Amino acid sequence: MESINLIIKNACQLLTLRSGQKGPRTGEHLADLGIIENGAVAISGDKIVAVGKTNEVLGKVSIGKKTKVIDAKNKVVLPGFVDCHTHPVFANTREDEFEMRIKGKTYQEIAASGGGIKSSVKALRSKSKKELIQLALPRLDRMLSYGTTTIEAKSGYGLSLEDEIKMLEVIKELNKIHPIDLIPTFLGAHEIPEEYKNNRKEYIKLIIEKMIPEVAKRKLAVFCDVFCEKGIFDIEESREILKAAKNHGFKLKLHADQLSSLGGSKLAAEVGAISADHLEFIDDDGIEKMKKSGVIGVLLPGACFGLGIKEYPPARKMIERGLPVALATDFNPGSSMTESMPMILSLACLMMRMTPAEAIVASTINSAYAVNKGNEIGSIEVGKKADLVIWNVQNYKEIPYRYGVNLVDHVIKNGEIIPAPHRQDLTRRNPV
Amino acid sequence: MESINLIIKNACQLLTLRSGQKGPRTGEHLADLGIIENGAVAISGDKIVAVGKTNEVLGKVSIGKKTKVIDAKNKVVLPGFVDCHTHPVFANTREDEFEMRIKGKTYQEIAASGGGIKSSVKALRSKSKKELIQLALPRLDRMLSYGTTTIEAKSGYGLSLEDEIKMLEVIKELNKIHPIDLIPTFLGAHEIPEEYKNNRKEYIKLIIEKMIPEVAKRKLAVFCDVFCEKGIFDIEESREILKAAKNHGFKLKLHADQLSSLGGSKLAAEVGAISADHLEFIDDDGIEKMKKSGVIGVLLPGACFGLGIKEYPPARKMIERGLPVALATDFNPGSSMTESMPMILSLACLMMRMTPAEAIVASTINSAYAVNKGNEIGSIEVGKKADLVIWNVQNYKEIPYRYGVNLVDHVIKNGEIIPAPHRQDLTRRNPV
Repeated sequence: MESINLIIKNACQLLTLRSGQKGPRTGEHLADLGIIENGAVAISGDKIVAVGKTNEVLGKVSIGKKTKVIDAKNKVVLPGFVDCHTHPVFANTREDEFEMRIKGKTYQEIAASGGGIKSSVKALRSKSKKELIQLALPRLDRMLSYGTTTIEAKSGYGLSLEDEIKMLEVIKELNKIHPIDLIPTFLGAHEIPEEYKNNRKEYIKLIIEKMIPEVAKRKLAVFCDVFCEKGIFDIEESREILKAAKNHGFKLKLHADQLSSLGGSKLAAEVGAISADHLEFIDDDGIEKMKKSGVIGVLLPGACFGLGIKEYPPARKMIERGLPVALATDFNPGSSMTESMPMILSLACLMMRMTPAEAIVASTINSAYAVNKGNEIGSIEVGKKADLVIWNVQNYKEIPYRYGVNLVDHVIKNGEIIPAPHRQDLTRRNPV
Repeated sequence: MESINLIIKNACQLLTLRSGQKGPRTGEHLADLGIIENGAVAISGDKIVAVGKTNEVLGKVSIGKKTKVIDAKNKVVLPGFVDCHTHPVFANTREDEFEMRIKGKTYQEIAASGGGIKSSVKALRSKSKKELIQLALPRLDRMLSYGTTTIEAKSGYGLSLEDEIKMLEVIKELNKIHPIDLIPTFLGAHEIPEEYKNNRKEYIKLIIEKMIPEVAKRKLAVFCDVFCEKGIFDIEESREILKAAKNHGFKLKLHADQLSSLGGSKLAAEVGAISADHLEFIDDDGIEKMKKSGVIGVLLPGACFGLGIKEYPPARKMIERGLPVALATDFNPGSSMTESMPMILSLACLMMRMTPAEAIVASTINSAYAVNKGNEIGSIEVGKKADLVIWNVQNYKEIPYRYGVNLVDHVIKNGEIIPAPHRQDLTRRNPV
């Protein structure tokens, strides 16, 4: 019998996310939650060693004096959320732009007048690594408190060799000091910086000849991403950058078809990207090509919500055509200022008509595949990392249904219990 | 010099909500936040005794050994939110209906098949007062944790004399044992109960001849409300009920023009209601009549969001025509399952194009007037009740901008500090 350090038992629903389908889930498997009622999970070190009905698991493992036991009676257990598209390192919030948009200005107009990504670039360049780390830590705390245990984290507010390296080093340090796992993405091609605005070819050359080799050499990023959009990087430029990155061993991602139907989704298929993200304006051909090439569609309803725009990605069509979809916050100060994955699940259900089950698969196992970690995280199976969240609900459907609030009871990260982030009952007097 | 028990000082923005306009704010006054930079508030007992710049307030009051001092440096202080339309007492959550709606069923179809309010009625009738109190307490805790200090609370899931009285007694008891102030509303006219479905006149007679007099006699409600809607209570029936309630001394509210343009807004004006609530389908004449009669428009964007419908109340038009508007959660298990007022502010800004300032006025001083307490709560002024919230933000605009998360630092209710409901930094290790 295996000696274990933590067991969670009696969960009214244990969502294992096991499925008959390997790889990212599609079609009917997109709703495969692998639910075990009265379920238990046993953990040794940072790994899951047993999963099943509570009595079965209790029969398999040895509970010693040092084994912590969590009774999850009347609670639901899920894998930790994998937030597979975030920009968590930034220097300034942009609430004034939020108000300008409400008053009628578009995202593009604000960008053209010196706001937008350029405003974040200016602010970020003026901060030290230490300052950026201090600013990012409470954001990661908040992510963890809402049930996220792994994130993808992008650079892209530096836009110079020095400042992009600085951002990626901040992400590396955050990964070291914070329980959340951060998977770094180099996004030097997020925007053309001010100093290159009349010389965009030079900036692209800088990315390809200096930044990509340097980031590769220092092993500071796993992924390379490009913001492929009208007025940012066109299809040709994006292709050139992504191919250079591929040659240096990066996996690829792409901001695609967000504000217009430029064809980023097809480019993602062509270059063999792991994911294409946004996809508000994807067309049928884009869906087909992504599907054939095994590219995951990462949907970011928070960016639509935060920008106050009505066009959401055509999630139902993608699902019906068999394209694997994942969900993420797109946490960033310009368009989606939320650290909360449950909020994104609510938006996915209400704005894109994904079912609660589909939304959970898309934000756990499918988003794990979207960061190329589908074999390590994203489901509750023996051998996987012990990243779990216990929810103060009796039915998983409550998670998107009860919107805008925090229903997390406990977060388990790498097999360790993170102190309960929320005590909703602190104000309780003596009830009758 | 006055002896005080609590002082909050150095707030980077203290939003007093003072205005040149008395009564609910309209027009340009709807954005009157009365901001004091580097502000302070002094509290004696449960009342505000001084408000101003920190150095002015410190010069006016006497700080003794027992005076608690909160340094609100880099924080924003607001009046507590007044959530002026809620249904917090219920027995069952209805996440299955949430999923049915995502799959294409309408609210009306679900109601017709035994779901909807009828499902809540069935569940509520089977519970004891004690059980209902235990179920409601964590909801009130969560409201408080998101910055709400006063709520209006409706009956309406009993729909029999006995069960409506039971609900109102639960609300009375909650008001006694929980820090939040609950203002009770009798909503016996929420739906025709199953046992009267072929005899609606009898049910209306029961409301008018038995329920209203009994609730009045026992002083269990301040307001009487009616769900005036096609298939629920028509204009004639609503008028009859509201007039009877008025004769028994109730103030009036009305669920009006939510799912169709039936004319509830005009009825609210005719009977002199304090507020008409919902108003998704209000027409120009309704706006004019409400304005002339001084009826406040209570907007509930959470009900549109939670139902996944696209028609939001025409807030900008109401504001431009000079109608006073307030905001509330409509917290209820059928259409709006959130306790969070900040979430409602985000929806008001993003879905109805209210500015952050307008949304704050609508959820503090204007919603205080919507529960007839505009002279006691809703602003930070000398003589008002010390219901305040300190926010972990440096600009009030962050509150709607940073959506779906909890940014509350401290809640002060009746002059008492409620333990910090959220510790976002619990997971912090030793940062570099």
